[in-house]
Amino acid sequence: MENYTQFLILFILALAVGFVSIAFVLTWVLHYREGLGWDGEAAEFNWHPLLMVIGFIFLQGIAIVVYRLPWTWRCSKQMMKFIHAGLNVLAFILAVVSVVAVFDFHNAKNIPNMYSLHSWVGLAAVILYPTQIVMGIAVYLIPATPVYVRAALMPVHIYSGLFIFTSVIATALMGFTEKLIFGLKSPAYKDSPPEAILVNVLGLLIAAFGGLILWIATRPSWKRPREEITQTVSNNSTNPEDTKTGTALTTRTHLDLETRRRNGKAEESE
Amino acid sequence: MENYTQFLILFILALAVGFVSIAFVLTWVLHYREGLGWDGEAAEFNWHPLLMVIGFIFLQGIAIVVYRLPWTWRCSKQMMKFIHAGLNVLAFILAVVSVVAVFDFHNAKNIPNMYSLHSWVGLAAVILYPTQIVMGIAVYLIPATPVYVRAALMPVHIYSGLFIFTSVIATALMGFTEKLIFGLKSPAYKDSPPEAILVNVLGLLIAAFGGLILWIATRPSWKRPREEITQTVSNNSTNPEDTKTGTALTTRTHLDLETRRRNGKAEESE
Repeated sequence: MENYTQFLILFILALAVGFVSIAFVLTWVLHYREGLGWDGEAAEFNWHPLLMVIGFIFLQGIAIVVYRLPWTWRCSKQMMKFIHAGLNVLAFILAVVSVVAVFDFHNAKNIPNMYSLHSWVGLAAVILYPTQIVMGIAVYLIPATPVYVRAALMPVHIYSGLFIFTSVIATALMGFTEKLIFGLKSPAYKDSPPEAILVNVLGLLIAAFGGLILWIATRPSWKRPREEITQTVSNNSTNPEDTKTGTALTTRTHLDLETRRRNGKAEESE
Repeated sequence: MENYTQFLILFILALAVGFVSIAFVLTWVLHYREGLGWDGEAAEFNWHPLLMVIGFIFLQGIAIVVYRLPWTWRCSKQMMKFIHAGLNVLAFILAVVSVVAVFDFHNAKNIPNMYSLHSWVGLAAVILYPTQIVMGIAVYLIPATPVYVRAALMPVHIYSGLFIFTSVIATALMGFTEKLIFGLKSPAYKDSPPEAILVNVLGLLIAAFGGLILWIATRPSWKRPREEITQTVSNNSTNPEDTKTGTALTTRTHLDLETRRRNGKAEESE
């Protein structure tokens, strides 16, 4: 892998920012708010930010870059697809529980549901996310899907994944804004009490986590090498026909890597 | 250009969504709010959403994709760089006026500045944006900058441009949330009066505009061809040495296009 050290630093930084974000949201709900519970009261609402940060932001972010971890390149692509899909399914389950918590809380308190921009964009994400997961499984995990369909849909799959992830972060920032305005009364949000500072910093941390994940996910040179490499490297057949195929594949792989390197470097050099 | 029709449809759609967003924000401030003025009152605040949507969102979005408009490929790269930089500078000026409007309004009303997550992320964007512009001018418009520096910094320039653009959209969504909570009293935001619906839809429109711009800006096959093509095509020299160079450049260009096509298609075909 090119720039392995840079990759490692940024990935560890993303993990660190993610864990600190989770620590911040825990501090928020446990120290500044009413803790956690399932009683239709504020403690139930508090699952909403906690599970969204853990699932819909942190786990989804890790799921996005999981193919790029060089130490997984020895694992089969199939296995990595299961891990990618599994992390996303887990994130979706947490997001659903988190949405149930906030609906329960609103209903118990006679607060209308779905009136805010936060809820509109959030609902769009909660609908698009399982659509993306189901499409991803149908296209990339069901063996019957032809390779040309997989290839044709991959740019859409990648783009919509990153778009949903970014929308979820924007939704979280709106959610923090709402909760700080409604939740802080005296001192109010505008008086910048410690809780307001904590959650503002949490917002910046989540934006930084998003920025790191998007950078890692969009570097051409950090992409998992195509499957042929593993096959070719592990191919020790002495059959001349196999060897010939192996050589052809190796050459193709080298071309791919060369193509990618040139494309990555020359991408926009003017 | 590959998929020219698709490009055209999406670009026209982005323009349409952008213009409708501007119409929505105008309707908001002129019909539902206090109109526009420069008096330290609400009418001065109203320049804030209007100029942000026109400048920091719409103009910045157009500036991002301006290289990709195929009808500009006959113009020199240098001229397109001036247009790209010029649109961004214009967007920045509008953003600064827009920030001045909100500070004036806050100061006149004794509302603290810079306490909200909206203002924190927004300030970060307002600081990063001119940094990006100055760096862009220093690296890509000053002829003395070596080509290898330009090439090395291009991925960072592109990424940070898209990151700032996305952050500005997230900031706008937080801003709408704040203004609807503070501005709507009876009926309140939670009662979903027409103004709340209008601004929620405006938020969705701006998210869609961002999504379209990001899609257009990240398709490898829609990138402006490298400068050599224009030079080679317009090179009618009969000097054998020139012709040789011309052929070499044409070959290189074909390789570039081939590389890009293969990379675009094979990007993630598994």
